Amino acid sequence: MIRVGIMGAAGYAGSELIRLLSGHPKAEIRWIGSRTREGEPFHKIYGNIYRIVDLEFTGSELQELSKDTDVIFTATPQGYAASVVNDELLKNVRIIDLSADFRLKDVDVYEKWYKIEHKSPKYLSESVYGLCELYREKVKDARILANPGCYTTCSILSCYPLVKEGLIDPDTLIIDAKSGTSGAGRGLKEGNLFCEVNENIKAYGVTTHRHTPEIEEQLSYAAGRSIMINFTPHLVPMNRGILVTAYASLKKDSNGNVPDADELISVYEKYYGDEQFIRVLPKGVCPETRWVEGSNYTDIGIAVDKRTGRAIMMGALDNLVKGAAGQAVQNMNIMFGLPENTALEAAPLFP
Amino acid sequence: MIRVGIMGAAGYAGSELIRLLSGHPKAEIRWIGSRTREGEPFHKIYGNIYRIVDLEFTGSELQELSKDTDVIFTATPQGYAASVVNDELLKNVRIIDLSADFRLKDVDVYEKWYKIEHKSPKYLSESVYGLCELYREKVKDARILANPGCYTTCSILSCYPLVKEGLIDPDTLIIDAKSGTSGAGRGLKEGNLFCEVNENIKAYGVTTHRHTPEIEEQLSYAAGRSIMINFTPHLVPMNRGILVTAYASLKKDSNGNVPDADELISVYEKYYGDEQFIRVLPKGVCPETRWVEGSNYTDIGIAVDKRTGRAIMMGALDNLVKGAAGQAVQNMNIMFGLPENTALEAAPLFP
Amino acid sequence: MIRVGIMGAAGYAGSELIRLLSGHPKAEIRWIGSRTREGEPFHKIYGNIYRIVDLEFTGSELQELSKDTDVIFTATPQGYAASVVNDELLKNVRIIDLSADFRLKDVDVYEKWYKIEHKSPKYLSESVYGLCELYREKVKDARILANPGCYTTCSILSCYPLVKEGLIDPDTLIIDAKSGTSGAGRGLKEGNLFCEVNENIKAYGVTTHRHTPEIEEQLSYAAGRSIMINFTPHLVPMNRGILVTAYASLKKDSNGNVPDADELISVYEKYYGDEQFIRVLPKGVCPETRWVEGSNYTDIGIAVDKRTGRAIMMGALDNLVKGAAGQAVQNMNIMFGLPENTALEAAPLFP
Amino acid sequence: MIRVGIMGAAGYAGSELIRLLSGHPKAEIRWIGSRTREGEPFHKIYGNIYRIVDLEFTGSELQELSKDTDVIFTATPQGYAASVVNDELLKNVRIIDLSADFRLKDVDVYEKWYKIEHKSPKYLSESVYGLCELYREKVKDARILANPGCYTTCSILSCYPLVKEGLIDPDTLIIDAKSGTSGAGRGLKEGNLFCEVNENIKAYGVTTHRHTPEIEEQLSYAAGRSIMINFTPHLVPMNRGILVTAYASLKKDSNGNVPDADELISVYEKYYGDEQFIRVLPKGVCPETRWVEGSNYTDIGIAVDKRTGRAIMMGALDNLVKGAAGQAVQNMNIMFGLPENTALEAAPLFP
Repeated sequence: MIRVGIMGAAGYAGSELIRLLSGHPKAEIRWIGSRTREGEPFHKIYGNIYRIVDLEFTGSELQELSKDTDVIFTATPQGYAASVVNDELLKNVRIIDLSADFRLKDVDVYEKWYKIEHKSPKYLSESVYGLCELYREKVKDARILANPGCYTTCSILSCYPLVKEGLIDPDTLIIDAKSGTSGAGRGLKEGNLFCEVNENIKAYGVTTHRHTPEIEEQLSYAAGRSIMINFTPHLVPMNRGILVTAYASLKKDSNGNVPDADELISVYEKYYGDEQFIRVLPKGVCPETRWVEGSNYTDIGIAVDKRTGRAIMMGALDNLVKGAAGQAVQNMNIMFGLPENTALEAAPLFP
Repeated sequence: MIRVGIMGAAGYAGSELIRLLSGHPKAEIRWIGSRTREGEPFHKIYGNIYRIVDLEFTGSELQELSKDTDVIFTATPQGYAASVVNDELLKNVRIIDLSADFRLKDVDVYEKWYKIEHKSPKYLSESVYGLCELYREKVKDARILANPGCYTTCSILSCYPLVKEGLIDPDTLIIDAKSGTSGAGRGLKEGNLFCEVNENIKAYGVTTHRHTPEIEEQLSYAAGRSIMINFTPHLVPMNRGILVTAYASLKKDSNGNVPDADELISVYEKYYGDEQFIRVLPKGVCPETRWVEGSNYTDIGIAVDKRTGRAIMMGALDNLVKGAAGQAVQNMNIMFGLPENTALEAAPLFP
Repeated sequence: MIRVGIMGAAGYAGSELIRLLSGHPKAEIRWIGSRTREGEPFHKIYGNIYRIVDLEFTGSELQELSKDTDVIFTATPQGYAASVVNDELLKNVRIIDLSADFRLKDVDVYEKWYKIEHKSPKYLSESVYGLCELYREKVKDARILANPGCYTTCSILSCYPLVKEGLIDPDTLIIDAKSGTSGAGRGLKEGNLFCEVNENIKAYGVTTHRHTPEIEEQLSYAAGRSIMINFTPHLVPMNRGILVTAYASLKKDSNGNVPDADELISVYEKYYGDEQFIRVLPKGVCPETRWVEGSNYTDIGIAVDKRTGRAIMMGALDNLVKGAAGQAVQNMNIMFGLPENTALEAAPLFP
Repeated sequence: MIRVGIMGAAGYAGSELIRLLSGHPKAEIRWIGSRTREGEPFHKIYGNIYRIVDLEFTGSELQELSKDTDVIFTATPQGYAASVVNDELLKNVRIIDLSADFRLKDVDVYEKWYKIEHKSPKYLSESVYGLCELYREKVKDARILANPGCYTTCSILSCYPLVKEGLIDPDTLIIDAKSGTSGAGRGLKEGNLFCEVNENIKAYGVTTHRHTPEIEEQLSYAAGRSIMINFTPHLVPMNRGILVTAYASLKKDSNGNVPDADELISVYEKYYGDEQFIRVLPKGVCPETRWVEGSNYTDIGIAVDKRTGRAIMMGALDNLVKGAAGQAVQNMNIMFGLPENTALEAAPLFP
C-alpha cells in the first residue's frame, strides 16, 4: 500500500483527493493536515464522506508526518509547498504539489505573476510538470511533481497538437475559458456567495490571470520558441467543469488553403488516440462539461472556419478531477508503477 | 458474469443503470432496448459514456432477447412491464422493474391511482417489493422484483422505524418531499425546460401523487393496520436528490411525556445500524441532498419538538441511485448472491 | 417628497429598498447608512444601480441624520433598532424596522428566541405589526412599524383566513417552508457559498427558527387563543422566493364532512378579494415562486384532501419584496397617505 | 394611446413585451396572437401576469387585426414577418419585427444563413435596423423596424466604437459570447431541459450561428469595408443575460505603441456618454450579466493587454430586454415620438 498524506485537505481539491483515494485499492490515507482544523473530524466539514472515511485533521509537523508516508499531496495555497520542501523531507517522501509553486521553471516569472517570493527555487529544475499525457516518462521518477492548474490542463491539452505540429500561428492564439465555481475554492469571499454567482456570468482576471504564464511556458516548448497568448477566464454558475474555447489562425499551405476539421482531428488522434482519459470527439461534436463531470476525462473537439481561416479548439474537463485531484492521483499511479487509471475509472455522472 | 438487458435505457434511470453497471465486475450489459431509437449508439444521447460503453439500441423482441439474458431491468413507462411479463419470459430471465407495475399488491389501488388497466395482475402476489433493507430475504428469490419509487424509498426509510415501533401516531403523518428535476425524466414537457424550473419551487400532484398509495401500503404493513397520509412533492431547481421532511405526533407515555431525539435515534440505529447504505445522522444534523449525490446512500436525521409533541423525520437520497438504478443494482446483487455493495461503493460527489 | 433614510443599506434587503425607492415618484433617499462602509459609493457593491442612484454610505449619527428625514428604514441586524429608538428620534422621524425587534409583543418571547436583551421594550406596545392586509388602519398612524419577516408574511397570509374562520384545527397546523438563498443575507458564511447551496436542499433551524413565535403570535390572535405550530424552513438553490406548504386538519361539520376546495377558496376571496397584492389562485393551481419574482405579489392556492380531511394551504412570495423591502414601501405608502401600490406595480419578472 | 398588437406572444420575447408594455403609460395592447393558442388566456401560460394583464390569444387575420392597431410587434419564427408584410398592411400599421427577416440587406446572405426563402425582399431596402443608439434618426420614420438580435446587439455595441475609429484591426476580431437559456426560447427541445442545461456549459453553432452575418454587416458599415469575424455562442445555465468577450489587435501608432485602456474608454464615452441605456464601466471593472438583469441597460468594459497588443471588449445585457423586447419598446417610443425610456426605466433586479 502507498502511504499517503494530504496537506490542505479542507479545501475542495483536498476533499476530492480523499474521495478518489477512498476508492483506491493500493493507497491508504495515513493522515490529513490543515492549519486551522486540528482535531476536527473530516466528515464534519464534508458530510459526503461520513462513515466512508474516518479521519481527523492532524496538527503534527510535516517532517514528523513524513516518516511513515510515501507521498504527500500539497493542496495548499501558493507558497506553502515551496516553503516546506527540503532535502530531508525528500528523503522520506515524494511530493505531488497541487499549487503553482513548482510549475514555472523561471522563478522570476513565478514571482512576477504570483507576487510572492519563491522559497526554494533550487528545486525548480528537478520538479516535473505533471501533465502526464505529455511527460509520462519524466513523471515516473519525479521527486517533486508539479500538478498542473485546472485551466492550464484544459488549455494545453486542447491546443498542444496544433502548436506542436506547426499547424497554427501561435501568436494568434486566444483562449477564452469558462469555469465552474469550485475552482474558486471554499474560502469566504463575497463574490463566491450563491446569490452573487447564480444567474450571472462574468470575466475576471482579464490579462492578469496566473495560469497565463503556465500555458505560455508549455506551449512555448511545443512551438519551439517563446509565445504569448491572451487568456480570459470566466465564472459560470455551476459547481464543476472547465470549458476552453481557443482560437488561432491556421497556417496556409502553398495554395493558400487551410486544413479542414477532419485533418486536424486526425492530428489529435495521433497524439491522444491511445490515451484513456482524452476523448477526441467526432467532427461536429462540441465538448460539454456535463459529459465529463466527476471523471478524469478531457473531451476535445475541433472546428475550422474556412471563411476566416481559423481553427476553434475546444476542451472540457472537471476542474476538481482532471484539473486537480484526479490528475494528481493519475500522477501518483505513474510514480508508483501502478496502472495509470487505478481509482479513476468512474464514468462521468450525468445528469 | 450476469448477463443483463435493459429496456427503456434512453431515460435517465436507464442511463444511470448503464453508468453503474459499466463499473460492475460481475455483470455485463448484453443489450439495451428503446422503442424509438433502434440502431442509435447510446453515447450519441449520453455523451458521458462515450468510449466507456459501446452499445447501440436494439429493436429485437423481448422474448428473443431474453434467451441469452439472466436479468432484465425495465426502466419503462407505467404499464409496459405488466404488458410483457409472462411465464415463458420468466423461464429465461428474472425481471427488475423500475416502474410501478408490481409495487402495489392491490390491483384496484393501482388502477385507481395510475388510471391504466393492469395487464398481468396474476403476478402481483409473487412480485417482491425491493426495498431491500426491509425485505432482503424475499429479494433473494424474486422472479419479479418491484423496485420502489424514489419518493417512496426516501419516505419509507425515513418513517418506518417509528411506525413499526408504534412511537408515532401514523394517522398524523404528513410527508413533505422535495425532488431534483431528473425525477421528471427526459421527456419533452414545457414544465421541465430549464427556464421554467430554474429559480422556482412549486408543489405538484398535491393530494394525487402516485407514490402516495405505495408509501401507505408499506407503512400500513409496519403499523399493522391500514393508514392514510398526506404526501406532497415539490420540484427543486437541481438535477438530483430527494429530501423528505415528515411530521407526526409522538405517542405520549403514561406521564404524558414524549421520547427525545436521542431515544428516537437509537431506534433508527436498531433498524439500520448494520446497513451500509443508510446513515443515521447524529442529533442536530439534518440530511442534505448534496451529501448523497451520485451515491447509493440514504441519510436520515431526526428531531423532536417537545413543544408540539411531534417528531420531524428527515431523509435524503439520490433519486437516480438509491431512488432508482442503484437500488435496482443492489437488488440484482442480492438476487444473484453477490456482495450487496458491488458497483455501489462510490462515495458521494461533492461539490 | 418623503425624505427617506436607510440604515443597513449594504444588505440585500437594504439594496432592494433602494431599487424600489429609485422608482418612487414621491420619495427621495436622503442618506444611506452602514457601519462598515462609510464613504463608499453604493454602486461599488451593487453594480445594478450604477448611474441610476448616486449615493454613498454615510457615517453620521442617527439623531443628526434624522433631522431632515421623515422616515428611516432599519434593515439592520436584530437588536440594532431597539437600541437606537428613543423619544427624541421619534420626534423627527417614523421608523420602519425590517428586523424583528418590534414584531413580538412579549419581550420574554423575543429574548428567549433571539437570545439577546431587548433594549427598548417600552415601545413594544405602541409598535404596529406591518402586515398591512390585516392591520391597514393601524399602520396609518404608526410611529414604529414592525415590518414582518419573510417566512412569516407568507405563512400568515396563507393560513390566516382558515384560522380566523375556525375552519381548521390550529393545533394541527404544520408549516413546511422553502426559501431562496437571498434570505440568508450577504454575510460571509461557508453555508452560503455557491458550491454549498447549488445542487442541494436541506432543512435548517428545525424546531428552533425565530419566525416560529412570530407566526404563532399572529395566528393566535386569529384563533382567539394561544396556539403552537411546527415550522420548518428549507434552503433552496435559487436567489429569490419563498414557498409555504401548510397542513392542517379541517373541522368536520355535524355530518362528519369537511368543506371542499371551492368553499375554502371563497373564504380566501372574502378576505383578500380586494387586495391588489394577494392573488388567490383558481382551484387546482399551485403557487410557484417564479410567478411572483421581483414583485410585491403573494400568490395563494388551496387544496383539500378528502381522504385525510386536511387542507393544504400554499403561498408564494418574493422574500426581498413582499417579504421585506416591498412590504416596507407598501407600509410607508400607507403611513404617508399615498396610494398603497406606489412604486410597487412592476409585474413579476419571468423567466 | 398607441394601439399595439403582438404576434407570437406565447414565446419568451413576446411575453416580455407584454410585461414591459403592461407598465407603459402611452401604449395599450389591443390583441395578442398565437397560431396555436387561440382562445387561451395569456395568464394560463404566464402566471406572472395573472390579474395584471387580462388578454386571450386571438385567431383573427392579421389584416383584420391591423385595422385598429398602430404598431404590430412580430416575435415570431424566421420567415413569418416576411411572409405577411405587404403594402395594404403597412397602410394601417408599422411593424417592429423581432425576427431576423429584415435585418440583413442582402437577401442572398439571409437565405444562405437561414436556409429559407425570403418572401418579401422588396422591403429590405426600406427596413431600418433598430439599433437605436446607432440609427436613432432613421428609426423615427421606419415603417418596418428590424429589431436586432440579442447576441448582435451586445456584440455590435461592444465593438462599434473601436471599429468605427479604426483603432483595431477588424480582421482579427473574435467574439466569444455566452447566453442564458431564455435565448433558446420556450420550444420543446431535449437540449433545453433543465437537467441538460444545468451544471453545463457548451459552445454551439460554432462557425455557423446566424447572428454572424448580422454582426459582420453592421461592423462592415463601421469599418467602411467588408469584414469577417469569428463568432462563437455558448449556453450558460442561467435564465437571462448575454456576455460578450471580444478580442482584436490594436493598431500601433508610429512608435509601435498601442493605446491604453483609459484612451479606449474615452472613445466609448464619446460614442455612448449621452446614452441612458449604455453604461461604459470604469477601468478595471468587467461587465456582469447580474448587473443588467431585467433591465434595458448594456454595460461595456474595456481592457488592454499591452503584452499581446490586443483590446478585450466586454459587454453585458439582458437578452430579453435590450436584446429583444426592451429594445423593441425603445424603438417604438422613438417611432411614436415618446421619451425613449418610457416603460424602460426599471433598475436591474439583483440578486
